[in-house]
Amino acid sequence: MIDDFQGWARSHQARIETSLEALIPTAKLSPERLHDAMRFSVLGGGKRIRPLLAFAAGELSAADEDRVTIAAVAVELIHAYSLVHDDLPCMDDDVLRRGKPTCHVEYNEAIALLVGDSLQSLAFQLLAEYRLADTPQVQLDMIKRLAQAAGSRGMAGGQAVDLVSVGKTLSLPELESMHIHKTGALIRAAVMIGACCGNSLNDSQLKNLDHFAKYIGLAFQVVDDVLDTEATTATLGKTAGKDADNNKPTYVSILGVKQARELSEELRQDAYQALEVFGSAAVRLRQLTDYIIQREF
Amino acid sequence: MIDDFQGWARSHQARIETSLEALIPTAKLSPERLHDAMRFSVLGGGKRIRPLLAFAAGELSAADEDRVTIAAVAVELIHAYSLVHDDLPCMDDDVLRRGKPTCHVEYNEAIALLVGDSLQSLAFQLLAEYRLADTPQVQLDMIKRLAQAAGSRGMAGGQAVDLVSVGKTLSLPELESMHIHKTGALIRAAVMIGACCGNSLNDSQLKNLDHFAKYIGLAFQVVDDVLDTEATTATLGKTAGKDADNNKPTYVSILGVKQARELSEELRQDAYQALEVFGSAAVRLRQLTDYIIQREF
Repeated sequence: MIDDFQGWARSHQARIETSLEALIPTAKLSPERLHDAMRFSVLGGGKRIRPLLAFAAGELSAADEDRVTIAAVAVELIHAYSLVHDDLPCMDDDVLRRGKPTCHVEYNEAIALLVGDSLQSLAFQLLAEYRLADTPQVQLDMIKRLAQAAGSRGMAGGQAVDLVSVGKTLSLPELESMHIHKTGALIRAAVMIGACCGNSLNDSQLKNLDHFAKYIGLAFQVVDDVLDTEATTATLGKTAGKDADNNKPTYVSILGVKQARELSEELRQDAYQALEVFGSAAVRLRQLTDYIIQREF
Repeated sequence: MIDDFQGWARSHQARIETSLEALIPTAKLSPERLHDAMRFSVLGGGKRIRPLLAFAAGELSAADEDRVTIAAVAVELIHAYSLVHDDLPCMDDDVLRRGKPTCHVEYNEAIALLVGDSLQSLAFQLLAEYRLADTPQVQLDMIKRLAQAAGSRGMAGGQAVDLVSVGKTLSLPELESMHIHKTGALIRAAVMIGACCGNSLNDSQLKNLDHFAKYIGLAFQVVDDVLDTEATTATLGKTAGKDADNNKPTYVSILGVKQARELSEELRQDAYQALEVFGSAAVRLRQLTDYIIQREF
């Protein structure tokens, strides 16, 4: 089953890579340097966790994989834009990402700013351009969902809270609230948008899927914090120990590594429970849950 | 007629202001500082030229004004985000905008970055959230159009070209191509999206409207360049003479003031001609054309 999952993950990661290659403008197209920097920032790296979640969620609604691919690309573009902006000197000021120099190091700050801005526009362009759902109205709902997840009440808002929390002691609920926005919102959007590409789910299914997505989003962050403490820069492909250096509150700084690991295990159980209603259709989501908890980078 | 236009413009500017106030999250909502900075950057200033163009274009298709209002707000949010990012130290490094400190001066660079990012997301959220057209498919087309206008082949791409053109000698066609992207794309989107809120136009009408939008976008930039040379910082509400200081190619640096004024007059005639097919329904677009050419700030 593990082998089977790895094959599935690899083939879908390849599918996303091919589609990102095709859907981001070629560097031969003007403005060449901007397009080159967009491709540098998105292609050839990343675990593509959000796209995999979208594909796995699409299996719950028997969604066409071509549709899910575009939706997954849009979510990944939003994620990639957030990394480029997050790495800028005025934010986390990081020089290494996915084992390569960050965009502003390889190009310059102005280009990195425009890369992020352009990737966000491209995400919404794709969601509006291709046929992704049974009706245009469902597609509008998908766009609304991704925009909310990206904006001031979602990911960007979580980053704003993250900025002011440096050096502060946060309570566990405060930390959780920050991460529900900063990383959780986009992970939830990936899951829900993937499912929207297929047959419509009933209210109970949607509610359970949203609960699942919330648990898996938190688990992802808890594991990220543990890895930031325990792994090496070489393994992570980004600067390890950065959170502690920046005096940022993390699950590890509040709970310690052991309790943080226990929390991730609890969240796995919660996630599994939320998937029960889907039976065997949720096999990929369960495998992804295990992968997210057990990953080593 | 001039009085009549001024009344129309004022009432529609007020309408946009009220809607922006209502649609940008209140500063009482978390994250408070981000929402406060978003409101600071968008509200209480600006000529709202793009919204006025959307309203005027909406008259060609007898569009419901409530629909056009949301579409116009979305375009203005994209414009406002681009100003916030454009003013950042790594871009134009400007301290004054609409007679107030720029966002990164009033708050800080990280907040200004997130303000721009969040305003862009909000624009697409609104276009997907409200009913703006006769069918959801038309609405998807509007989203695609705005996303293309904002992205690497539109506004953000024009800014990338602008960045590398500093200190260079551009030919008139090169300068025109830069501005067609940098300011023209969003102005075209404003016009086309406004018209999309109403009855569908035929192909000849759409083509003429797009030509009009292209001419008016260029005319806007030519006049901007003249004003940057001739007006004072106090009148403009932004730093005057900035382009020459930055050694940026402009219509004035290439043509001189007199010829640039003549070019704006030619573009007015071209714009008028493109509107002929619409007869009296285009009265507001003609008045806006005059306003854009004759404005003093």
